[in-house]
Amino acid sequence: MIVDKLFDAVAMRGPVCVGLDTAIEYLPPEFRAGFDDPGEALFQFNRRIVDATTASCACFKLQIAYYEALGLEGLRTYARTLQYIRGKGCIAVADIKRGDIAATAQMYAKAHFEGEFEADYVTLSPYMGMDSIEPWLPWVQDHDKGLFVLIRTSNPGAVDIQYLEQKSGARVYTEVGRRVAELGTHHIGTCGYSSVGGVVGCTHVEEAQVLRQQLNTVFFLVPGYGAQGGTAADVALYLTNGNGGIVNSSRGILLAWKKQEGGAAHFDACAGAEVERMRDDIRAAVNALQT
Amino acid sequence: MIVDKLFDAVAMRGPVCVGLDTAIEYLPPEFRAGFDDPGEALFQFNRRIVDATTASCACFKLQIAYYEALGLEGLRTYARTLQYIRGKGCIAVADIKRGDIAATAQMYAKAHFEGEFEADYVTLSPYMGMDSIEPWLPWVQDHDKGLFVLIRTSNPGAVDIQYLEQKSGARVYTEVGRRVAELGTHHIGTCGYSSVGGVVGCTHVEEAQVLRQQLNTVFFLVPGYGAQGGTAADVALYLTNGNGGIVNSSRGILLAWKKQEGGAAHFDACAGAEVERMRDDIRAAVNALQT
Repeated sequence: MIVDKLFDAVAMRGPVCVGLDTAIEYLPPEFRAGFDDPGEALFQFNRRIVDATTASCACFKLQIAYYEALGLEGLRTYARTLQYIRGKGCIAVADIKRGDIAATAQMYAKAHFEGEFEADYVTLSPYMGMDSIEPWLPWVQDHDKGLFVLIRTSNPGAVDIQYLEQKSGARVYTEVGRRVAELGTHHIGTCGYSSVGGVVGCTHVEEAQVLRQQLNTVFFLVPGYGAQGGTAADVALYLTNGNGGIVNSSRGILLAWKKQEGGAAHFDACAGAEVERMRDDIRAAVNALQT
Repeated sequence: MIVDKLFDAVAMRGPVCVGLDTAIEYLPPEFRAGFDDPGEALFQFNRRIVDATTASCACFKLQIAYYEALGLEGLRTYARTLQYIRGKGCIAVADIKRGDIAATAQMYAKAHFEGEFEADYVTLSPYMGMDSIEPWLPWVQDHDKGLFVLIRTSNPGAVDIQYLEQKSGARVYTEVGRRVAELGTHHIGTCGYSSVGGVVGCTHVEEAQVLRQQLNTVFFLVPGYGAQGGTAADVALYLTNGNGGIVNSSRGILLAWKKQEGGAAHFDACAGAEVERMRDDIRAAVNALQT
Protein backbone atom coordinates (compact mmCIF):
# COMPACT_ATOMS: atom_id res chain seq x y z
CA MET A 1 0.00 0.00 0.00
CA ILE A 2 1.16 3.49 -0.84
CA VAL A 3 0.76 4.66 2.75
CA ASP A 4 3.33 2.09 3.90
CA LYS A 5 5.76 3.33 1.29
CA LEU A 6 5.20 6.90 2.46
CA PHE A 7 5.49 5.91 6.13
CA ASP A 8 8.81 4.20 5.41
CA ALA A 9 10.04 7.23 3.47
CA VAL A 10 9.27 9.46 6.47
CA ALA A 11 10.97 7.01 8.83
CA MET A 12 14.10 6.93 6.67
CA ARG A 13 14.38 10.46 5.34
CA GLY A 14 12.13 12.61 7.52
CA PRO A 15 8.70 14.21 7.02
CA VAL A 16 9.49 17.00 4.54
CA CYS A 17 7.29 17.17 1.46
CA VAL A 18 8.99 19.30 -1.20
CA GLY A 19 6.33 21.48 -2.83
CA LEU A 20 7.04 22.05 -6.50
CA ASP A 21 4.71 25.04 -6.84
CA THR A 22 7.16 26.35 -9.36
CA ALA A 23 6.43 29.78 -10.79
CA ILE A 24 8.70 30.93 -13.59
CA GLU A 25 9.63 33.94 -11.42
CA TYR A 26 11.22 31.58 -8.89
CA LEU A 27 13.99 30.58 -11.28
CA PRO A 28 17.29 32.44 -11.04
CA PRO A 29 17.34 34.79 -14.05
CA GLU A 30 20.72 33.43 -15.20
CA PHE A 31 19.32 29.92 -15.22
CA ARG A 32 16.08 30.95 -16.93
CA ALA A 33 18.06 32.72 -19.64
CA GLY A 34 19.64 29.43 -20.68
CA PHE A 35 16.39 28.15 -22.19
CA ASP A 36 14.25 29.44 -25.05
CA ASP A 37 11.21 27.67 -23.74
CA PRO A 38 9.67 28.44 -20.29
CA GLY A 39 8.36 24.87 -20.01
CA GLU A 40 11.82 23.43 -20.54
CA ALA A 41 13.33 25.88 -18.05
CA LEU A 42 10.74 24.91 -15.45
CA PHE A 43 11.33 21.22 -15.99
CA GLN A 44 15.11 21.51 -15.71
CA PHE A 45 14.73 23.62 -12.56
CA ASN A 46 12.38 21.04 -11.03
CA ARG A 47 14.71 18.19 -12.04
CA ARG A 48 17.63 19.76 -10.24
CA ILE A 49 15.51 20.50 -7.14
CA VAL A 50 14.33 16.88 -7.11
CA ASP A 51 17.87 15.53 -7.47
CA ALA A 52 19.15 17.76 -4.69
CA THR A 53 16.39 16.93 -2.19
CA THR A 54 15.52 13.27 -2.81
CA ALA A 55 17.89 12.05 -0.08
CA SER A 56 16.37 14.24 2.63
CA CYS A 57 12.64 14.41 1.86
CA ALA A 58 9.71 12.02 2.07
CA CYS A 59 8.02 12.97 -1.18
CA PHE A 60 7.19 15.70 -3.68
CA LYS A 61 3.97 17.65 -4.15
CA LEU A 62 3.10 19.44 -7.37
CA GLN A 63 0.56 22.25 -7.20
CA ILE A 64 -1.05 21.85 -10.64
CA ALA A 65 -2.34 25.47 -10.72
CA TYR A 66 1.20 26.72 -11.38
CA TYR A 67 1.41 24.52 -14.46
CA GLU A 68 -2.16 25.10 -15.67
CA ALA A 69 -1.37 28.82 -15.66
CA LEU A 70 1.11 28.18 -18.49
CA GLY A 71 -1.46 26.31 -20.60
CA LEU A 72 -0.58 23.16 -22.50
CA GLU A 73 3.13 23.83 -22.29
CA GLY A 74 2.89 24.09 -18.50
CA LEU A 75 0.93 20.87 -18.30
CA ARG A 76 3.56 19.13 -20.41
CA THR A 77 6.11 20.25 -17.81
CA TYR A 78 3.80 19.01 -15.07
CA ALA A 79 3.62 15.58 -16.72
CA ARG A 80 7.38 15.42 -17.28
CA THR A 81 8.10 16.40 -13.67
CA LEU A 82 5.73 13.73 -12.34
CA GLN A 83 7.32 11.14 -14.58
CA TYR A 84 10.79 12.15 -13.50
CA ILE A 85 9.93 11.88 -9.79
CA ARG A 86 8.18 8.55 -10.15
CA GLY A 87 10.92 7.25 -12.43
CA LYS A 88 13.33 7.73 -9.55
CA GLY A 89 11.08 5.61 -7.33
CA CYS A 90 9.94 8.64 -5.33
CA ILE A 91 6.38 9.43 -4.30
CA ALA A 92 4.51 12.21 -6.11
CA VAL A 93 1.46 13.98 -4.68
CA ALA A 94 -0.73 15.79 -7.21
CA ASP A 95 -2.16 18.80 -5.40
CA ILE A 96 -5.26 19.16 -7.52
CA LYS A 97 -8.02 19.57 -4.88
CA ARG A 98 -10.59 18.13 -7.26
CA GLY A 99 -14.06 17.39 -5.98
CA ASP A 100 -16.77 16.11 -8.25
CA ILE A 101 -19.12 13.15 -8.40
CA ALA A 102 -19.89 9.93 -10.24
CA ALA A 103 -18.67 9.71 -13.83
CA THR A 104 -16.85 13.03 -13.51
CA ALA A 105 -14.89 11.83 -10.48
CA GLN A 106 -13.98 8.69 -12.37
CA MET A 107 -12.69 10.80 -15.24
CA TYR A 108 -10.54 12.79 -12.80
CA ALA A 109 -9.23 9.57 -11.26
CA LYS A 110 -8.35 8.27 -14.71
CA ALA A 111 -6.63 11.59 -15.47
CA HIS A 112 -4.47 11.67 -12.34
CA PHE A 113 -3.92 8.00 -11.51
CA GLU A 114 -3.30 6.73 -15.05
CA GLY A 115 -1.53 7.93 -18.17
CA GLU A 116 0.60 11.03 -18.60
CA PHE A 117 -0.42 12.73 -15.36
CA GLU A 118 -0.10 9.64 -13.15
CA ALA A 119 0.66 10.50 -9.51
CA ASP A 120 0.76 8.39 -6.35
CA TYR A 121 -1.49 10.61 -4.27
CA VAL A 122 -4.02 13.31 -5.06
CA THR A 123 -5.58 15.98 -2.86
CA LEU A 124 -9.39 16.21 -2.90
CA SER A 125 -11.97 18.75 -1.70
CA PRO A 126 -15.00 17.27 0.09
CA TYR A 127 -17.66 19.98 -0.26
CA MET A 128 -19.89 17.92 -2.58
CA GLY A 129 -19.92 15.04 -0.08
CA MET A 130 -18.52 11.58 0.32
CA ASP A 131 -19.82 10.52 -3.09
CA SER A 132 -17.14 12.84 -4.47
CA ILE A 133 -14.46 10.81 -2.63
CA GLU A 134 -15.80 7.27 -3.00
CA PRO A 135 -15.26 6.99 -6.78
CA TRP A 136 -11.51 7.26 -6.10
CA LEU A 137 -11.44 4.28 -3.74
CA PRO A 138 -11.11 1.56 -6.42
CA TRP A 139 -7.76 3.13 -7.33
CA VAL A 140 -6.74 3.09 -3.67
CA GLN A 141 -7.83 -0.52 -3.42
CA ASP A 142 -6.47 -1.94 -6.66
CA HIS A 143 -3.80 0.41 -7.94
CA ASP A 144 -1.82 1.35 -4.86
CA LYS A 145 -2.94 4.98 -4.87
CA GLY A 146 -3.62 7.36 -2.00
CA LEU A 147 -5.81 10.38 -1.21
CA PHE A 148 -5.43 13.45 0.97
CA VAL A 149 -8.86 14.94 1.60
CA LEU A 150 -9.11 18.54 2.85
CA ILE A 151 -10.20 18.50 6.49
CA ARG A 152 -8.93 21.63 8.23
CA THR A 153 -6.86 23.98 6.13
CA SER A 154 -4.43 26.59 7.42
CA ASN A 155 -5.67 29.71 5.62
CA PRO A 156 -7.58 32.45 7.48
CA GLY A 157 -10.75 31.80 5.46
CA ALA A 158 -10.85 28.20 6.73
CA VAL A 159 -13.13 29.48 9.48
CA ASP A 160 -15.84 30.46 6.95
CA ILE A 161 -17.12 26.93 6.37
CA GLN A 162 -14.86 24.41 8.10
CA TYR A 163 -15.37 26.14 11.44
CA LEU A 164 -19.14 26.42 11.39
CA GLU A 165 -20.47 24.98 14.61
CA GLN A 166 -23.11 22.33 14.36
CA LYS A 167 -25.98 21.71 16.72
CA SER A 168 -23.93 18.96 18.31
CA GLY A 169 -21.24 21.53 19.12
CA ALA A 170 -18.78 19.91 16.72
CA ARG A 171 -17.39 21.94 13.87
CA VAL A 172 -17.83 21.04 10.20
CA TYR A 173 -14.19 19.97 9.86
CA THR A 174 -14.60 17.52 12.76
CA GLU A 175 -17.43 15.82 10.88
CA VAL A 176 -15.38 15.79 7.67
CA GLY A 177 -12.45 14.26 9.57
CA ARG A 178 -14.67 11.59 11.06
CA ARG A 179 -15.99 10.66 7.63
CA VAL A 180 -12.54 10.62 6.04
CA ALA A 181 -11.32 8.28 8.80
CA GLU A 182 -14.37 6.09 8.28
CA LEU A 183 -13.83 5.87 4.50
CA GLY A 184 -10.23 4.92 5.16
CA THR A 185 -10.85 2.00 7.49
CA HIS A 186 -10.69 -0.54 4.65
CA HIS A 187 -7.41 0.83 3.39
CA ILE A 188 -5.14 0.71 6.44
CA GLY A 189 -1.59 -0.46 5.83
CA THR A 190 0.79 -2.38 8.07
CA CYS A 191 2.04 0.96 9.42
CA GLY A 192 -1.36 1.51 11.04
CA TYR A 193 -2.35 4.45 8.82
CA SER A 194 -4.76 4.52 5.92
CA SER A 195 -4.07 5.37 2.29
CA VAL A 196 -7.06 7.71 2.64
CA GLY A 197 -5.30 10.62 4.33
CA GLY A 198 -6.24 14.16 5.21
CA VAL A 199 -5.00 17.72 4.85
CA VAL A 200 -4.78 19.48 8.22
CA GLY A 201 -3.23 22.88 8.73
CA CYS A 202 -1.20 24.56 11.40
CA THR A 203 -3.68 25.81 13.97
CA HIS A 204 -4.12 25.99 17.71
CA VAL A 205 -2.26 23.57 19.92
CA GLU A 206 -5.33 21.92 21.42
CA GLU A 207 -7.02 21.62 18.05
CA ALA A 208 -3.98 19.86 16.62
CA GLN A 209 -3.75 17.50 19.58
CA VAL A 210 -7.41 16.56 19.29
CA LEU A 211 -7.16 16.03 15.54
CA ARG A 212 -4.10 13.78 15.89
CA GLN A 213 -5.77 11.80 18.65
CA GLN A 214 -9.21 11.41 17.08
CA LEU A 215 -7.96 10.68 13.58
CA ASN A 216 -5.28 8.22 14.64
CA THR A 217 -5.42 6.19 11.42
CA VAL A 218 -5.42 9.22 9.11
CA PHE A 219 -2.06 10.07 7.56
CA PHE A 220 -1.74 13.86 7.44
CA LEU A 221 -0.50 16.25 4.82
CA VAL A 222 0.35 19.40 6.76
CA PRO A 223 0.77 22.64 4.78
CA GLY A 224 1.66 26.03 6.17
CA TYR A 225 5.23 25.54 7.42
CA GLY A 226 7.39 28.59 6.83
CA ALA A 227 5.79 30.84 4.24
CA GLN A 228 2.32 30.48 5.81
CA GLY A 229 3.60 31.13 9.31
CA GLY A 230 3.67 27.65 10.83
CA THR A 231 6.61 26.68 13.04
CA ALA A 232 8.20 23.29 13.65
CA ALA A 233 6.50 23.19 17.06
CA ASP A 234 3.11 23.68 15.37
CA VAL A 235 3.57 20.93 12.82
CA ALA A 236 5.17 18.47 15.27
CA LEU A 237 1.79 18.20 17.02
CA TYR A 238 0.42 16.46 13.94
CA LEU A 239 3.18 13.84 13.92
CA THR A 240 3.19 10.85 16.24
CA ASN A 241 6.77 10.07 17.18
CA GLY A 242 7.74 12.01 14.08
CA ASN A 243 5.62 10.00 11.63
CA GLY A 244 2.02 9.71 10.47
CA GLY A 245 2.29 12.86 8.42
CA ILE A 246 4.27 14.89 5.93
CA VAL A 247 4.97 18.61 6.17
CA ASN A 248 4.95 20.64 3.00
CA SER A 249 7.07 23.62 2.15
CA SER A 250 7.25 25.16 -1.29
CA ARG A 251 8.59 28.69 -1.56
CA GLY A 252 10.91 28.22 1.42
CA ILE A 253 12.71 25.49 -0.54
CA LEU A 254 12.41 26.74 -4.12
CA LEU A 255 13.55 30.24 -3.18
CA ALA A 256 16.24 29.23 -0.67
CA TRP A 257 18.82 30.42 -3.21
CA LYS A 258 17.68 34.02 -2.70
CA LYS A 259 18.71 33.97 0.93
CA GLN A 260 22.32 33.12 0.21
CA GLU A 261 24.86 35.33 -1.45
CA GLY A 262 25.67 33.89 -4.86
CA GLY A 263 22.90 31.30 -4.28
CA ALA A 264 21.53 31.62 -7.81
CA ALA A 265 24.42 29.62 -9.25
CA HIS A 266 23.68 26.67 -6.99
CA PHE A 267 19.96 26.98 -6.30
CA ASP A 268 19.68 23.22 -6.04
CA ALA A 269 22.25 22.93 -3.25
CA CYS A 270 20.46 25.78 -1.44
CA ALA A 271 17.17 23.86 -1.72
CA GLY A 272 18.84 20.68 -0.45
CA ALA A 273 20.31 22.50 2.55
CA GLU A 274 16.93 24.09 3.33
CA VAL A 275 15.20 20.68 3.27
CA GLU A 276 17.82 19.31 5.68
CA ARG A 277 17.43 22.32 7.95
CA MET A 278 13.65 21.97 7.91
CA ARG A 279 13.82 18.22 8.57
CA ASP A 280 16.16 18.76 11.54
CA ASP A 281 14.01 21.62 12.80
CA ILE A 282 10.90 19.40 12.81
CA ARG A 283 12.76 16.43 14.30
CA ALA A 284 14.00 18.62 17.15
CA ALA A 285 10.44 19.85 17.76
CA VAL A 286 9.18 16.26 17.79
CA ASN A 287 11.87 15.32 20.32
CA ALA A 288 11.01 18.34 22.46
CA LEU A 289 7.37 17.21 22.53
CA GLN A 290 8.33 13.73 23.69
CA THR A 291 10.45 14.85 26.60
CA MET B 1 -20.74 42.57 -17.40
CA ILE B 2 -20.81 38.94 -18.30
CA VAL B 3 -23.97 38.34 -16.27
CA ASP B 4 -25.88 40.79 -18.46
CA LYS B 5 -24.71 38.98 -21.57
CA LEU B 6 -25.84 35.68 -20.05
CA PHE B 7 -29.16 37.16 -18.91
CA ASP B 8 -29.81 38.43 -22.44
CA ALA B 9 -28.89 35.06 -23.91
CA VAL B 10 -31.44 33.36 -21.64
CA ALA B 11 -34.07 35.97 -22.52
CA MET B 12 -33.49 35.45 -26.24
CA ARG B 13 -32.75 31.76 -26.54
CA GLY B 14 -33.90 30.13 -23.30
CA PRO B 15 -32.10 28.82 -20.22
CA VAL B 16 -30.49 25.65 -21.57
CA CYS B 17 -26.78 25.23 -20.87
CA VAL B 18 -25.33 22.60 -23.20
CA GLY B 19 -22.91 20.44 -21.19
CA LEU B 20 -19.99 19.30 -23.29
CA ASP B 21 -18.96 16.52 -20.91
CA THR B 22 -17.88 14.64 -23.97
CA ALA B 23 -16.58 11.11 -23.43
CA ILE B 24 -15.15 9.37 -26.47
CA GLU B 25 -17.78 6.63 -25.97
CA TYR B 26 -20.53 9.17 -26.65
CA LEU B 27 -19.49 9.57 -30.29
CA PRO B 28 -21.32 7.47 -32.88
CA PRO B 29 -18.84 4.72 -33.86
CA GLU B 30 -19.16 5.57 -37.57
CA PHE B 31 -18.23 9.17 -36.81
CA ARG B 32 -15.39 8.21 -34.48
CA ALA B 33 -13.97 5.89 -37.15
CA GLY B 34 -13.42 8.83 -39.50
CA PHE B 35 -10.55 10.18 -37.37
CA ASP B 36 -7.18 8.69 -36.47
CA ASP B 37 -6.86 10.88 -33.46
CA PRO B 38 -9.35 10.77 -30.51
CA GLY B 39 -8.70 14.44 -29.72
CA GLU B 40 -9.61 15.49 -33.26
CA ALA B 41 -12.72 13.27 -33.21
CA LEU B 42 -13.84 14.86 -29.94
CA PHE B 43 -13.27 18.36 -31.23
CA GLN B 44 -15.19 17.77 -34.46
CA PHE B 45 -18.03 16.18 -32.49
CA ASN B 46 -18.14 19.17 -30.12
CA ARG B 47 -17.98 21.60 -33.02
CA ARG B 48 -21.03 20.04 -34.68
CA ILE B 49 -22.96 19.97 -31.37
CA VAL B 50 -22.14 23.65 -30.82
CA ASP B 51 -23.23 24.60 -34.33
CA ALA B 52 -26.50 22.68 -33.98
CA THR B 53 -27.46 24.12 -30.59
CA THR B 54 -26.19 27.72 -30.60
CA ALA B 55 -29.55 29.09 -31.74
CA SER B 56 -31.52 27.47 -28.93
CA CYS B 57 -29.22 27.51 -25.88
CA ALA B 58 -27.92 30.18 -23.50
CA CYS B 59 -24.36 28.93 -23.23
CA PHE B 60 -22.00 25.95 -23.14
CA LYS B 61 -20.35 24.26 -20.18
CA LEU B 62 -17.26 22.11 -20.49
CA GLN B 63 -16.57 19.60 -17.73
CA ILE B 64 -12.76 19.63 -17.78
CA ALA B 65 -12.44 16.17 -16.17
CA TYR B 66 -13.50 14.52 -19.42
CA TYR B 67 -10.64 16.23 -21.21
CA GLU B 68 -8.04 15.81 -18.46
CA ALA B 69 -8.74 12.07 -18.61
CA LEU B 70 -7.21 12.07 -22.11
CA GLY B 71 -4.05 13.83 -20.97
CA LEU B 72 -2.44 16.59 -23.00
CA GLU B 73 -4.30 15.62 -26.15
CA GLY B 74 -7.60 15.92 -24.29
CA LEU B 75 -6.65 19.31 -22.93
CA ARG B 76 -5.73 20.48 -26.42
CA THR B 77 -9.28 19.53 -27.45
CA TYR B 78 -10.62 21.35 -24.41
CA ALA B 79 -8.75 24.51 -25.44
CA ARG B 80 -9.87 24.24 -29.07
CA THR B 81 -13.50 23.74 -28.05
CA LEU B 82 -13.43 26.76 -25.76
CA GLN B 83 -11.85 28.85 -28.50
CA TYR B 84 -14.44 27.69 -31.01
CA ILE B 85 -17.36 28.58 -28.71
CA ARG B 86 -15.98 31.99 -27.78
CA GLY B 87 -14.99 32.64 -31.38
CA LYS B 88 -18.69 32.40 -32.27
CA GLY B 89 -19.49 35.02 -29.63
CA CYS B 90 -21.09 32.42 -27.32
CA ILE B 91 -20.53 32.10 -23.57
CA ALA B 92 -18.34 29.27 -22.27
CA VAL B 93 -18.45 28.01 -18.68
CA ALA B 94 -15.40 26.08 -17.52
CA ASP B 95 -16.69 23.50 -15.05
CA ILE B 96 -13.46 23.11 -13.10
CA LYS B 97 -14.67 23.35 -9.46
CA ARG B 98 -11.30 24.68 -8.37
CA GLY B 99 -10.86 25.88 -4.81
CA ASP B 100 -7.52 27.06 -3.52
CA ILE B 101 -6.12 30.17 -1.93
CA ALA B 102 -3.83 33.15 -2.46
CA ALA B 103 -1.12 32.73 -5.10
CA THR B 104 -2.52 29.34 -6.12
CA ALA B 105 -5.97 30.77 -6.76
CA GLN B 106 -4.39 33.53 -8.83
CA MET B 107 -2.58 30.92 -10.90
CA TYR B 108 -5.86 29.11 -11.52
CA ALA B 109 -7.52 32.38 -12.49
CA LYS B 110 -4.69 33.08 -14.93
CA ALA B 111 -5.07 29.55 -16.29
CA HIS B 112 -8.81 29.73 -16.91
CA PHE B 113 -9.46 33.41 -17.57
CA GLU B 114 -6.45 34.10 -19.82
CA GLY B 115 -4.52 32.31 -22.52
CA GLU B 116 -5.34 28.99 -24.16
CA PHE B 117 -7.98 27.88 -21.66
CA GLU B 118 -9.80 31.21 -21.45
CA ALA B 119 -13.46 30.82 -20.48
CA ASP B 120 -16.15 33.36 -19.56
CA TYR B 121 -17.24 31.67 -16.34
CA VAL B 122 -15.67 29.11 -14.02
CA THR B 123 -17.20 26.95 -11.31
CA LEU B 124 -15.55 27.07 -7.87
CA SER B 125 -15.73 24.97 -4.71
CA PRO B 126 -15.88 26.97 -1.46
CA TYR B 127 -14.66 24.47 1.19
CA MET B 128 -11.42 26.38 1.91
CA GLY B 129 -13.39 29.58 2.57
CA MET B 130 -14.05 32.93 0.97
CA ASP B 131 -10.32 33.59 0.55
CA SER B 132 -10.46 30.87 -2.10
CA ILE B 133 -13.09 32.89 -4.02
CA GLU B 134 -11.85 36.44 -3.47
CA PRO B 135 -8.67 36.13 -5.59
CA TRP B 136 -10.93 35.61 -8.63
CA LEU B 137 -12.81 38.89 -8.12
CA PRO B 138 -10.30 41.14 -9.93
CA TRP B 139 -11.07 39.15 -13.09
CA VAL B 140 -14.80 39.63 -12.48
CA GLN B 141 -14.22 43.32 -11.92
CA ASP B 142 -11.78 44.13 -14.70
CA HIS B 143 -12.02 41.38 -17.30
CA ASP B 144 -15.73 40.75 -17.64
CA LYS B 145 -15.56 37.26 -16.12
CA GLY B 146 -18.04 35.38 -13.95
CA LEU B 147 -18.09 32.73 -11.22
CA PHE B 148 -20.48 29.99 -10.21
CA VAL B 149 -19.69 28.93 -6.65
CA LEU B 150 -21.02 25.58 -5.39
CA ILE B 151 -23.81 26.25 -2.90
CA ARG B 152 -26.22 23.30 -2.84
CA THR B 153 -25.43 20.48 -5.25
CA SER B 154 -27.90 17.88 -6.50
CA ASN B 155 -26.03 14.66 -5.69
CA PRO B 156 -27.13 12.41 -2.79
CA GLY B 157 -23.86 13.05 -0.90
CA ALA B 158 -24.65 16.78 -0.82
CA VAL B 159 -26.23 16.11 2.58
CA ASP B 160 -22.86 15.05 4.09
CA ILE B 161 -21.47 18.55 4.47
CA GLN B 162 -23.78 21.07 2.81
CA TYR B 163 -26.72 19.89 4.92
CA LEU B 164 -25.04 19.96 8.31
CA GLU B 165 -27.23 21.95 10.64
CA GLN B 166 -25.62 24.77 12.52
CA LYS B 167 -26.43 25.98 15.99
CA SER B 168 -28.51 28.75 14.43
CA GLY B 169 -30.62 26.09 12.75
CA ALA B 170 -29.37 27.11 9.29
CA ARG B 171 -27.61 24.56 7.14
CA VAL B 172 -24.05 24.97 5.86
CA TYR B 173 -25.24 25.63 2.30
CA THR B 174 -27.43 28.50 3.54
CA GLU B 175 -24.36 30.15 5.03
CA VAL B 176 -22.38 29.56 1.84
CA GLY B 177 -25.22 31.05 -0.20
CA ARG B 178 -25.34 34.10 2.03
CA ARG B 179 -21.61 34.64 1.65
CA VAL B 180 -21.68 34.16 -2.12
CA ALA B 181 -24.47 36.73 -2.39
CA GLU B 182 -22.48 39.10 -0.20
CA LEU B 183 -19.31 38.74 -2.29
CA GLY B 184 -21.39 39.42 -5.39
CA THR B 185 -22.92 42.69 -4.27
CA HIS B 186 -20.23 44.77 -5.97
CA HIS B 187 -20.65 42.93 -9.24
CA ILE B 188 -24.35 43.28 -10.00
CA GLY B 189 -25.25 44.03 -13.62
CA THR B 190 -28.11 46.01 -15.09
CA CYS B 191 -30.16 42.81 -15.16
CA GLY B 192 -30.19 42.82 -11.35
CA TYR B 193 -28.05 39.71 -10.97
CA SER B 194 -24.40 39.43 -10.02
CA SER B 195 -21.52 38.01 -12.04
CA VAL B 196 -20.75 36.03 -8.87
CA GLY B 197 -23.28 33.24 -9.32
CA GLY B 198 -23.97 29.96 -7.60
CA VAL B 199 -24.53 26.29 -8.35
CA VAL B 200 -27.80 25.04 -6.88
CA GLY B 201 -29.23 21.61 -7.57
CA CYS B 202 -32.66 20.15 -8.01
CA THR B 203 -33.98 19.50 -4.54
CA HIS B 204 -37.18 19.90 -2.56
CA VAL B 205 -39.75 22.44 -3.66
CA GLU B 206 -39.62 24.56 -0.49
CA GLU B 207 -35.83 24.52 -0.45
CA ALA B 208 -35.71 25.79 -4.03
CA GLN B 209 -38.25 28.51 -3.32
CA VAL B 210 -36.32 29.72 -0.29
CA LEU B 211 -33.00 29.70 -2.19
CA ARG B 212 -34.44 31.68 -5.10
CA GLN B 213 -36.03 34.17 -2.74
CA GLN B 214 -33.09 34.65 -0.36
CA LEU B 215 -30.44 34.76 -3.07
CA ASN B 216 -32.33 37.09 -5.36
CA THR B 217 -29.21 38.64 -6.88
CA VAL B 218 -27.39 35.33 -7.43
CA PHE B 219 -27.54 33.96 -10.95
CA PHE B 220 -27.92 30.18 -10.74
CA LEU B 221 -26.32 27.32 -12.60
CA VAL B 222 -28.72 24.42 -12.10
CA PRO B 223 -27.42 20.93 -12.86
CA GLY B 224 -29.36 17.70 -12.56
CA TYR B 225 -31.98 18.05 -15.33
CA GLY B 226 -32.67 14.76 -17.06
CA ALA B 227 -29.86 12.29 -16.38
CA GLN B 228 -29.74 13.18 -12.69
CA GLY B 229 -33.50 12.94 -12.24
CA GLY B 230 -34.55 16.59 -12.17
CA THR B 231 -37.73 17.59 -14.03
CA ALA B 232 -38.65 20.88 -15.68
CA ALA B 233 -40.97 21.61 -12.75
CA ASP B 234 -38.03 21.20 -10.35
CA VAL B 235 -35.69 23.50 -12.22
CA ALA B 236 -38.36 26.12 -12.98
CA LEU B 237 -38.42 26.94 -9.26
CA TYR B 238 -34.91 28.34 -9.57
CA LEU B 239 -35.85 30.69 -12.42
CA THR B 240 -37.66 33.97 -11.90
CA ASN B 241 -40.00 34.53 -14.84
CA GLY B 242 -37.80 32.07 -16.71
CA ASN B 243 -34.52 33.91 -16.14
CA GLY B 244 -31.89 34.37 -13.43
CA GLY B 245 -30.45 30.95 -14.07
CA ILE B 246 -29.27 28.40 -16.61
CA VAL B 247 -30.13 24.71 -16.61
CA ASN B 248 -27.46 22.25 -17.63
CA SER B 249 -27.90 19.00 -19.45
CA SER B 250 -25.03 16.96 -20.84
CA ARG B 251 -25.69 13.33 -21.64
CA GLY B 252 -29.33 14.01 -22.53
CA ILE B 253 -28.12 16.25 -25.35
CA LEU B 254 -24.89 14.54 -26.42
CA LEU B 255 -26.54 11.12 -26.54
CA ALA B 256 -29.87 12.23 -28.04
CA TRP B 257 -28.82 10.45 -31.26
CA LYS B 258 -29.11 7.08 -29.50
CA LYS B 259 -32.81 7.54 -28.90
CA GLN B 260 -33.64 7.95 -32.56
CA GLU B 261 -33.46 5.28 -35.22
CA GLY B 262 -30.62 6.15 -37.57
CA GLY B 263 -29.71 9.03 -35.25
CA ALA B 264 -25.97 8.36 -35.45
CA ALA B 265 -25.76 9.86 -38.92
CA HIS B 266 -27.21 13.17 -37.74
CA PHE B 267 -26.23 13.29 -34.08
CA ASP B 268 -26.03 17.06 -34.25
CA ALA B 269 -29.59 17.52 -35.41
CA CYS B 270 -30.71 15.13 -32.64
CA ALA B 271 -28.84 17.28 -30.09
CA GLY B 272 -30.41 20.44 -31.51
CA ALA B 273 -33.91 18.94 -31.30
CA GLU B 274 -33.29 17.80 -27.71
CA VAL B 275 -32.17 21.31 -26.69
CA GLU B 276 -35.34 22.78 -28.22
CA ARG B 277 -37.49 20.17 -26.48
CA MET B 278 -35.77 20.86 -23.15
CA ARG B 279 -36.09 24.62 -23.58
CA ASP B 280 -39.81 24.31 -24.33
CA ASP B 281 -40.28 21.87 -21.46
CA ILE B 282 -38.72 24.35 -19.02
CA ARG B 283 -40.60 27.33 -20.48
CA ALA B 284 -43.89 25.44 -20.07
CA ALA B 285 -43.02 24.66 -16.45
CA VAL B 286 -42.15 28.31 -15.82
CA ASN B 287 -45.52 29.37 -17.31
CA ALA B 288 -47.34 26.78 -15.21
CA LEU B 289 -45.72 28.24 -12.08
CA GLN B 290 -46.85 31.74 -12.96
CA THR B 291 -50.51 30.84 -13.45
